[in-house]
Amino acid sequence: MKIVCNKSDLVKGVNIVSKAVPGKTTMPILECILIDATTDIIKLTANDMELGIQTEIAGEIIDRGMIAIDAKIFSEIVRKLPDNEVSIETDDRLQTTIVCEKAKFDISGKPGNEFAYLPIIEKDDSIAISQFTLKEVIRQTIFSIADTESNKLMTGELFEIKDNVLRVASLDGHRISIRKIELKNPVSDYKMVVPGKTLIEISKILSGEAESMVEISYTNNHIVFEFDNTIVVSRLIEGEYFKIDQMLSSDYDTKVRINKKEFLNCIDRATLLIKEGDKKPIIIDIQDEMMELKIKSQIGSMNEEIMISKDGKDLLIGFNPKFLIDALRVIDDEEVTLYLMNAKAPCFIKDETESYIYLILPVNFNANV
Amino acid sequence: MKIVCNKSDLVKGVNIVSKAVPGKTTMPILECILIDATTDIIKLTANDMELGIQTEIAGEIIDRGMIAIDAKIFSEIVRKLPDNEVSIETDDRLQTTIVCEKAKFDISGKPGNEFAYLPIIEKDDSIAISQFTLKEVIRQTIFSIADTESNKLMTGELFEIKDNVLRVASLDGHRISIRKIELKNPVSDYKMVVPGKTLIEISKILSGEAESMVEISYTNNHIVFEFDNTIVVSRLIEGEYFKIDQMLSSDYDTKVRINKKEFLNCIDRATLLIKEGDKKPIIIDIQDEMMELKIKSQIGSMNEEIMISKDGKDLLIGFNPKFLIDALRVIDDEEVTLYLMNAKAPCFIKDETESYIYLILPVNFNANV
Repeated sequence: MKIVCNKSDLVKGVNIVSKAVPGKTTMPILECILIDATTDIIKLTANDMELGIQTEIAGEIIDRGMIAIDAKIFSEIVRKLPDNEVSIETDDRLQTTIVCEKAKFDISGKPGNEFAYLPIIEKDDSIAISQFTLKEVIRQTIFSIADTESNKLMTGELFEIKDNVLRVASLDGHRISIRKIELKNPVSDYKMVVPGKTLIEISKILSGEAESMVEISYTNNHIVFEFDNTIVVSRLIEGEYFKIDQMLSSDYDTKVRINKKEFLNCIDRATLLIKEGDKKPIIIDIQDEMMELKIKSQIGSMNEEIMISKDGKDLLIGFNPKFLIDALRVIDDEEVTLYLMNAKAPCFIKDETESYIYLILPVNFNANV
Repeated sequence: MKIVCNKSDLVKGVNIVSKAVPGKTTMPILECILIDATTDIIKLTANDMELGIQTEIAGEIIDRGMIAIDAKIFSEIVRKLPDNEVSIETDDRLQTTIVCEKAKFDISGKPGNEFAYLPIIEKDDSIAISQFTLKEVIRQTIFSIADTESNKLMTGELFEIKDNVLRVASLDGHRISIRKIELKNPVSDYKMVVPGKTLIEISKILSGEAESMVEISYTNNHIVFEFDNTIVVSRLIEGEYFKIDQMLSSDYDTKVRINKKEFLNCIDRATLLIKEGDKKPIIIDIQDEMMELKIKSQIGSMNEEIMISKDGKDLLIGFNPKFLIDALRVIDDEEVTLYLMNAKAPCFIKDETESYIYLILPVNFNANV
């Protein structure tokens, strides 16, 4: 194999596929990037058997062939080459020579045919959303997946298509995050659970442009994201996702409108007094036109008042401050509305159209604080 | 004590003195910042007994007094306060109340008189250099101090004043870095060894402005840096520093002029093939008008040619690539000159006026690479 391409194209391609290179594996071939120049197109692929990424790069194929090269070494080398044309050539013994200007590297490769190709997916159905929207929706929900492997479904996100709306949801037992996206073209209802890791990696690759689209197709076992010259294939998580609709409610006894930034900054200050691992709640005392936030720990105490507008009853309620911070950080609205029932019932932060819903369970606290 | 000051002034002051707060200590009082408002000026102080920093902040003193507050908590609190006036008030039981807008923190303090004040220094003599120059000279020499405590002198830098020139030098047994600064005012000859840690911390505080001066004064045991409204006092390292002049030499058999950036980038690429802890040298083959750099490791091999201009003999010599990189990174010249004798003798990188000298010892290598 011999190919010639631009350093910048090569770096871009290597950065994209590197997201699917496993950190640790018992199969050394998976630690490689496959350079496939057996057709008229140069393709780079990495695959950890759960998540696979393939991307095309511009360049000239002088001799067809393919080679698998250690991803870490290869990406470090290409990143540090001068900004110029790079030639990659392999010999019969899989020795790979990378030349750029006067710099010449020799490293050994592995046979390309030992590499685990991406599965070939027969697409059942597909939807299209912009790169911007997909990147945003991941950011706005990914924080409330669980990192425990004890319940595999909690490590993924529900992608549910219903009445031409894509609903993305995650939950960890203490809170639920939901975002809704209207789809432009009619599509059949569908439900699947996408691994959180896949979504984290894909959101690093997405350019986030509003004009550029991602085609998302799916089968029983796989989801495929196609955008720019890149294909991302991921296994789905098997099983029936939690019945989140049963956990949602529209009833409330207390409704609070509050400036988001003030609320967020205040909770942020309060968390200073909590050491990592310490489960001190922030206590919110909702009164007419004013809400007092209080926290007390071994380090000291803090309290602060914020102006609000309130409908309904007064309420004293405690929360894990981190959960409030996580939700408030990803809401772009200047003002947010909190719907509460009592000190034992979940709090909902949502907008009027329910384009977002954040459910947060309260925590018990000592009222004498 | 009760004082009122601006959040931004307070944050700036806390950030400065925090550099002298020890990471670990058996004396909890040293983990505090002292707020001293016993005179007409608000002073913040931190002191780890080796290094002490005091800075003045603008503000109003309503009740005179002083208090020591845990540095970590205090700096986190002030950093997250709204951008507004901050009031700090203590009561008889050393409870400290920090109020900014509607946010109110209560934490407990320690008695200010238990705090270790900065030593009072009777200045023998002093020099003045710009903040920019001091910051630069530290950056350009600090990398070749040794981090071993087995030879305390190697963990510091020689500050030697001679014939109105300040010479700053560091060495770690494999290399020496020397920078010279002409002093504007006549001053007596002097020699001292300043702890590397002091220099690292001070260079973080220095604004780096060319117009703003630092007054450096010194006694047998201490060095004092005064700039802006800040005083940094550090112990000196005791003992006679190494006789570096005996290690320097002006003789050479090979002299090489080379583009610094090309040379640096090439070595940087070569180090990709070396794993951390692996002591593979980079081998430099100096010929007429061309120099070849080669490296070979278990991962693979690399070679690259660079154009040079050469006086004297051809030479094949090996170096620890990190030592070359460290020196080349802090030289601002577009072209550098290397002076070499043979494969066993040190290489000197220096300019014509010897405003900088970097000595690097070569390493043995297998010539069959």
